[in-house]
Amino acid sequence: MQYHLSCTRCNRRFHIDAPLWKCSSCGGTLEVVSEDIAKGDFDSFIDKGMRGLWRYRKLIPLPNDPVTLGEGGTPTVMRKEPKTELCLKLEYISPTGAFKDRGASVSVTRAKGAGAKYVVEDSTGNAGIAAAAYSAKAGIKARIYVPSDAPRVKKMLISAFGAEVVECSSRDEAAARSKSELKMGEVYIGHMWDPFYIEGMKTIAYEVYENSYRVDSVVVPVASGTILLGIYGGFRFLESLGLVDNFPSIYAVQGEGCAPLYEALHGRIASSRSSRLADGRRIKDPPRKDEILKAIRETGGDVFMVSDEEIAPAMKELYRMGIMAEPTSATVYAAFRKNENELKGRVLMPITGTGMKNTDSLAAVFGKIGLSHR
Amino acid sequence: MQYHLSCTRCNRRFHIDAPLWKCSSCGGTLEVVSEDIAKGDFDSFIDKGMRGLWRYRKLIPLPNDPVTLGEGGTPTVMRKEPKTELCLKLEYISPTGAFKDRGASVSVTRAKGAGAKYVVEDSTGNAGIAAAAYSAKAGIKARIYVPSDAPRVKKMLISAFGAEVVECSSRDEAAARSKSELKMGEVYIGHMWDPFYIEGMKTIAYEVYENSYRVDSVVVPVASGTILLGIYGGFRFLESLGLVDNFPSIYAVQGEGCAPLYEALHGRIASSRSSRLADGRRIKDPPRKDEILKAIRETGGDVFMVSDEEIAPAMKELYRMGIMAEPTSATVYAAFRKNENELKGRVLMPITGTGMKNTDSLAAVFGKIGLSHR
Repeated sequence: MQYHLSCTRCNRRFHIDAPLWKCSSCGGTLEVVSEDIAKGDFDSFIDKGMRGLWRYRKLIPLPNDPVTLGEGGTPTVMRKEPKTELCLKLEYISPTGAFKDRGASVSVTRAKGAGAKYVVEDSTGNAGIAAAAYSAKAGIKARIYVPSDAPRVKKMLISAFGAEVVECSSRDEAAARSKSELKMGEVYIGHMWDPFYIEGMKTIAYEVYENSYRVDSVVVPVASGTILLGIYGGFRFLESLGLVDNFPSIYAVQGEGCAPLYEALHGRIASSRSSRLADGRRIKDPPRKDEILKAIRETGGDVFMVSDEEIAPAMKELYRMGIMAEPTSATVYAAFRKNENELKGRVLMPITGTGMKNTDSLAAVFGKIGLSHR
Repeated sequence: MQYHLSCTRCNRRFHIDAPLWKCSSCGGTLEVVSEDIAKGDFDSFIDKGMRGLWRYRKLIPLPNDPVTLGEGGTPTVMRKEPKTELCLKLEYISPTGAFKDRGASVSVTRAKGAGAKYVVEDSTGNAGIAAAAYSAKAGIKARIYVPSDAPRVKKMLISAFGAEVVECSSRDEAAARSKSELKMGEVYIGHMWDPFYIEGMKTIAYEVYENSYRVDSVVVPVASGTILLGIYGGFRFLESLGLVDNFPSIYAVQGEGCAPLYEALHGRIASSRSSRLADGRRIKDPPRKDEILKAIRETGGDVFMVSDEEIAPAMKELYRMGIMAEPTSATVYAAFRKNENELKGRVLMPITGTGMKNTDSLAAVFGKIGLSHR
């Protein structure tokens, strides 16, 4: 297949190898577009000898060897509910404990192919950890900009992987400085912008299809929206092959206090409170907001908003199923419980990050350990 | 295939469904033995429709549906060294972040099949977390006995999964009380004793074989020895099918201060210091010690001992490869670095547990985070 980069705003085309993270003409976000989609058998795109994400390397427009730590190929736990069937895809069973590994693997592979000696990312935690780990694997230095109130363990892990941690006063400042301080020869792989990051996320849809799960709706947590856009794009590709009969409706979930998508769709600020639990959620103006809203509207989806009072019991319920979700991941289950009547059929719900990295929130939700001193 | 339980000490046979965790005659450890091994194709034992551990369910003598959270099917990172090739099997990419999930999945599946309403385990952390998670998945209550100095996060996670945490003054007391306080209708699934736990571990060897990695040596951390015995038993089964030409030599690794296997083989107490880092290693008298020593001697292996001064740099090196190992897991890489000349060919090295759960040791090894406030 042939590919190019395309601006999602002005539609300008760029060569697939262009060293860009945004449109050099209008500043819009870029996406990877395939030019010659042949209808036919999805099997022919699968590299059966590979496991995980790179099983689909024929669909990832990068010629060089993958930088991999074994990401992707995540298991699915099915669960019958009164009106629906949940398809919980455990994305936290991943090299650094979060779905971000899919994006980081592809973004760092691209940076390595381009000869990068330094990569730069901005993140509240999980994306930074993934970028640091994959850079380490690739032998490329990394500089990660984080807000200073990001969980301590997450900052510690980024540093342990050998990356430089730059603390900023806010998430916005981290985003701004990561770009303004870029030097010659450094490659910006920021997950909010890098179009290749989303190519990694598309493999979630490919896995769901290959594992024969047909889903009617998808409920995902959204901050920058890479997982939503990846799953959407993956299903669109499968549809172009003639393999999707009913395109799933896509539902985004945001935490109270920072829910720009919810407000864009429902036209009101629903609450003045701010979620303390959903720490991976604080992006006030995601660069791909219009793309995300388009995907939601096109598929008949919606945006759900949840509060800490709803996240905590949802997280407890997930643990009681043996599922170790971090609060940011538990938002989807909270949204499901709250909006069960709106959802139908089989519901794909990625559980995006592990609860192990965020012990403060674990203590906040579960309180004192129920120790027994008999 | 037909199976029975056999005492490793007095060879007494028991029905495979016998509700035993040790020999009712002499108190020895039990093992699962298959009666009618047919030479032939390993492929016929693989359930190709399944992913992970239960892909080998035809080799696990349990008739009921598996209690699964997606354990097994772990990725492998290859790494060329001057004299050897490392085959790092990332066992921490697992539902609760440790290889223990393989054992817990099989043990809890058996307990559920036997109608258990309560399971009991004793552990310094990882095994207890796994037991708690799988019990939650199965809808069975769990009671986990832990030494009070086990890492706080690990105790918190056990409790979050809904299990009862019983704090004991020592690892030995936890082991003793877990058995003495057993009540009618409760099933003891202690990983040091339950023979089915090892059946789960055997799948590591099956995966290595199915993924076409031929290995010459295996280096594993040993406390209770379930992973060593599982890998050994798995390769013995493959050998019985005529599929193993050169049986790999098996090397055990222990931390200073609690190295009963090292002392049994090398006949001396090598140091009076005690490892603070290898917290999953404090079992002074593992019930399966003789089985472990037999496997090591038979295969021409050895026992290596490592100190905290060797573990810390090994852990740092692993992180710089993008591998997030906890100190207990880093012992194998430390032992490899120290004994590189003794090892040859392709070396299988399971990285058994994630560094995310043990933030104290992360801080101990990496010190202050290298934060930049430019």
